[in-house]
Amino acid sequence: MIFTERLEAHASRLERHLDEWLTPQRVGPAAPRLLEAMRYGSLGGGKRVRPFLVIESAALFGVAVEGALNAAAALECVHCYSLVHDDLPAMDNDDLRRGRPTVHKAFDEATAILAGDGLLTLAFEILASPDTHPNPAVRADLALALARASGVSGMAGGQMYDLEAPGKTLGEAEIRLLQAMKTGALITFGCVAGGILGEASAANIAALRAYGDALGAAFQLADDLLDVEGDAALVGKATGKDTEAGKGTLVSLFGVEAARVKLDELKQEALAALAPFKPRDGVLAEAAEFVVARKF
Amino acid sequence: MIFTERLEAHASRLERHLDEWLTPQRVGPAAPRLLEAMRYGSLGGGKRVRPFLVIESAALFGVAVEGALNAAAALECVHCYSLVHDDLPAMDNDDLRRGRPTVHKAFDEATAILAGDGLLTLAFEILASPDTHPNPAVRADLALALARASGVSGMAGGQMYDLEAPGKTLGEAEIRLLQAMKTGALITFGCVAGGILGEASAANIAALRAYGDALGAAFQLADDLLDVEGDAALVGKATGKDTEAGKGTLVSLFGVEAARVKLDELKQEALAALAPFKPRDGVLAEAAEFVVARKF
Repeated sequence: MIFTERLEAHASRLERHLDEWLTPQRVGPAAPRLLEAMRYGSLGGGKRVRPFLVIESAALFGVAVEGALNAAAALECVHCYSLVHDDLPAMDNDDLRRGRPTVHKAFDEATAILAGDGLLTLAFEILASPDTHPNPAVRADLALALARASGVSGMAGGQMYDLEAPGKTLGEAEIRLLQAMKTGALITFGCVAGGILGEASAANIAALRAYGDALGAAFQLADDLLDVEGDAALVGKATGKDTEAGKGTLVSLFGVEAARVKLDELKQEALAALAPFKPRDGVLAEAAEFVVARKF
Repeated sequence: MIFTERLEAHASRLERHLDEWLTPQRVGPAAPRLLEAMRYGSLGGGKRVRPFLVIESAALFGVAVEGALNAAAALECVHCYSLVHDDLPAMDNDDLRRGRPTVHKAFDEATAILAGDGLLTLAFEILASPDTHPNPAVRADLALALARASGVSGMAGGQMYDLEAPGKTLGEAEIRLLQAMKTGALITFGCVAGGILGEASAANIAALRAYGDALGAAFQLADDLLDVEGDAALVGKATGKDTEAGKGTLVSLFGVEAARVKLDELKQEALAALAPFKPRDGVLAEAAEFVVARKF
């Protein structure tokens, strides 16, 4: 199967799985309007890159797709909650997301705040559920790793830095830290989660972490390059936003040429980290190529 | 020790414990402003009733206070996150909380949203941490129970119903459901958490759940009575708010007299649920008396 077809196939399975979770049958007697807003904010779109990483890193250790879907869905819940909250008027104030009104536009602000809260909470309900893994130590480890990746020292902390950034001149180290927290932490979790699910050795988990860190940095750098060079029609969102917002990126700091060189280095770093998994590393190696080469 | 002294002693220990958690030493390299807002939103006040219930229900099974503090702190993080988000302009729009500016007033709205997100996430980081309990099944069970109590079918769902309530005429069943979700679920979790920590039997956990459900309903009914009858100076917040907001409560539905009778019934129900724990049920029995008799 070619890579993009595999990505789409996993995205479809993730979509169905998340759809099943977001029902009263799974979550109990929910407030209907809130459940509806959570569904609106998480279903029906997205490349589902993070769940893909969970599924494929778990496959390295012989975990079937079904055995990775809960962890993948939990990670996507956190990603979607962050989009719902980041879009709020007090944050990035975006009216559109994936071509549709954002949650606070389609519903209202209070409902959007609660929908984000609900999705974040659901992520931990899913991870802690017995059907996520028969070994409770795995479930607890997943919850701990996701909480660390998402909280004040991870994604939420990165968003705080991002909100403080406009008007400041950030150096390379600061930009790297911001991006590693805001975007990188969840991508790294996606890679590490497969190892936790597969009860991998500490050395293998460290290798997945190194792969995820490089991949996350590459993902963000490619995004920054697209913002400068990309075709808005292909990218699916307005380009030039970072420059307009006065946001420092590695591209604005070093220029396009140096950024392209760095992007290639990050790809090599990601590929090198996969060495312990040869010859089963094919799909994750393709993922690194895909992230670096993407035009959208 | 008399009950209120015991409540204060536990509150002090909880405060110190939460203070330790909210440091870079425990949570890693946090975004300083966000960590500051999370501290502001969770430290320095509150009766800490929910943590008290965790500590005292755990004590029934021989769990020392130290062994219950993590679970107690996690529950308080969820309670505090809910206050930070509920106070937001898009929600209840409150400027003051415990006599101080609310988080979005002391910082700003975006920071308050993120601080709530960070506290919610921290709750699960704490529960999943190895030092919460040596048995990972206990940690996973605590995370699952707290997520269910807090999410779309628990507290967040209750807050959604509450936001939809003004202008509607709610019947008894609807008011009960709203209150059981919005306030009751976390109180019940506090009682059940002690049983999970103590690896109690299913029958004992069910008894704690019954006690918590009755206590939570009594807590809310007492609150509604205070809103009608209470002395604002003693209560520490404006009274008459529910009537003003057009919020239906059991007091507005049945009147003060009938509500007092119901309150006593709930107390009896809570006390009866403690039967399996005699003669060690003293403190939890006092807690039921305290909740019903409180003037603040």
